[in-house]
Amino acid sequence: MGEFELIERVFARRAAAVPPRAGIALGIGDDCALLAAPPPETQLAVSTDMLVEGRHFFPEVAPNALGHKALAVNLSDLAAMGAEPLAFTLALALPPERARDADWLDAFADGLMALAQAYRCALIGGDTTAGPLAISITVFGYLPRGQALRRDGARAGDDLWVSGALGDARLALEALRNRIVLSPAQQAQARQRLERPTPRIALGQALRGVASSCIDLSDGLAGDLGHVLHASDVGARINADVVASLLQTPAPVTAQQRYAYTLAGGDDYELIFTAPPNRRAQVETAARQAATPVTRIGGITAMPGLALHDAAGRALAGSFAGFDHFA
Amino acid sequence: MGEFELIERVFARRAAAVPPRAGIALGIGDDCALLAAPPPETQLAVSTDMLVEGRHFFPEVAPNALGHKALAVNLSDLAAMGAEPLAFTLALALPPERARDADWLDAFADGLMALAQAYRCALIGGDTTAGPLAISITVFGYLPRGQALRRDGARAGDDLWVSGALGDARLALEALRNRIVLSPAQQAQARQRLERPTPRIALGQALRGVASSCIDLSDGLAGDLGHVLHASDVGARINADVVASLLQTPAPVTAQQRYAYTLAGGDDYELIFTAPPNRRAQVETAARQAATPVTRIGGITAMPGLALHDAAGRALAGSFAGFDHFA
Repeated sequence: MGEFELIERVFARRAAAVPPRAGIALGIGDDCALLAAPPPETQLAVSTDMLVEGRHFFPEVAPNALGHKALAVNLSDLAAMGAEPLAFTLALALPPERARDADWLDAFADGLMALAQAYRCALIGGDTTAGPLAISITVFGYLPRGQALRRDGARAGDDLWVSGALGDARLALEALRNRIVLSPAQQAQARQRLERPTPRIALGQALRGVASSCIDLSDGLAGDLGHVLHASDVGARINADVVASLLQTPAPVTAQQRYAYTLAGGDDYELIFTAPPNRRAQVETAARQAATPVTRIGGITAMPGLALHDAAGRALAGSFAGFDHFA
Repeated sequence: MGEFELIERVFARRAAAVPPRAGIALGIGDDCALLAAPPPETQLAVSTDMLVEGRHFFPEVAPNALGHKALAVNLSDLAAMGAEPLAFTLALALPPERARDADWLDAFADGLMALAQAYRCALIGGDTTAGPLAISITVFGYLPRGQALRRDGARAGDDLWVSGALGDARLALEALRNRIVLSPAQQAQARQRLERPTPRIALGQALRGVASSCIDLSDGLAGDLGHVLHASDVGARINADVVASLLQTPAPVTAQQRYAYTLAGGDDYELIFTAPPNRRAQVETAARQAATPVTRIGGITAMPGLALHDAAGRALAGSFAGFDHFA
């Protein structure tokens, strides 16, 4: 089966199942896709991510989960800006043995396109080549002009919030690396968070006009929050025990591990955002609308840097840098 | 040096050198870039491509040439639709030894951003990760609504045209694989075509309203033309000797090699397009405006399939399928 047949056969049927969008003038199949000009008061949000085997996922990952995650991490970037998903392109490097494996391809495409369909996000372009397994997606979404949730809007005095749960993905990773031992039930719960993250699309949109800044958590809370603090020229104070309580899986980990996984675990794909204290009710309303729990974990300070304290207010030392792909 | 510093240091300075565009509301540095809504009569063309080491380029390729080519092949897709370049995103998987090699990174970024600057195409987003060397670019361009040069517009009776030269990139590849021997001067000329293709942006725009269909040549004339014929439900007759004359490098190749390189060589990044015979003068005017030579190589037929004949009108047999990455 040739390259062109491959991409056509596996993706075309599933792509057609995504309901058509007014914004897409020409879909997959020509040199370029064409997006119609959106209303003048609209902006187009664009983000790109690449997942590489052995770095972002294990070779033995279930292909359905891999397809899901490849799109989910991109949708998470749209969520962090408050954008509504529109479309995506897919560039796929596949080892020849994968390209010949119809079961693997079908499962990968199923996982990817089920999530695409759930968010009405149309596959509008692609490129397939032989090579070490790598998946690069570029995603597009709509935003009302000027309403994007940016990294540079945090102000001293703002509350600091995070959505959902933290650290479970890292817990699963540690178990897969045989560094900790989990029961089958614990492992299943944690792996679900590692392999099938839920992009916080509804929450991101509900936070437009409410949050002062927002970022999604891919490399760990401490590291990703650092980007917000740097862009906004502020610091933050975090209650590390509140953060540590956001580990969902009941796992036999030490207090230090719990801090490390929740503060710097990576792969959480939750939103961390700031809002003035007088908007607490609005934040909680947005969370209810989006059916996504949120937790207030600290506040923004004028003094740069990230200060951690425990539930009793005692300062905690410790370096929790973001995950560095080249470290 | 960390991942974030890497991408920031190497690309930020060069990205800033690209003159600002009105269409870009927010550039690189947040979860998403933001494109302003273009005028209502405009469409946004989107295309994505991935280059993988060992498949699309040799490990020893000069990094400046690699950076150039990675963007050039994407701009070529915009050219094939007649679009005006606007912006691009870059996802980059780098082996750790490359990520630490400032000279390599600088040269790669120089090659990439020099071409970006030449076309005022802004780098608006990126992702860098460790992994086998792979470069995935998604490119954006403007088009007046309804004026895209599509694959499905070829009609029986149309002329068939091609821009520039053909087969020299394949000639260089054969020499690099030691399958043929070239003089240093011949090799240099052919390699220039392999490693530094010129996207036919000006020609594509000049052909709007003139050409009835268009595609860019990445996998070889016969294979890529096949996509046009299939989409347009037509066939074509080609004078293979005219095509063979488009090999520019004066090289000691057999007549069969010359046919093979020019008809199915791949990596040409020229435009092949159709237009009614009563637009020959307009095609030649467009070519002059774009300072890009064009050659009429045949015509479109109602009967499906691709028929080759020589200068004397004798039918030529031979299969010249497009390059298949998994073959």
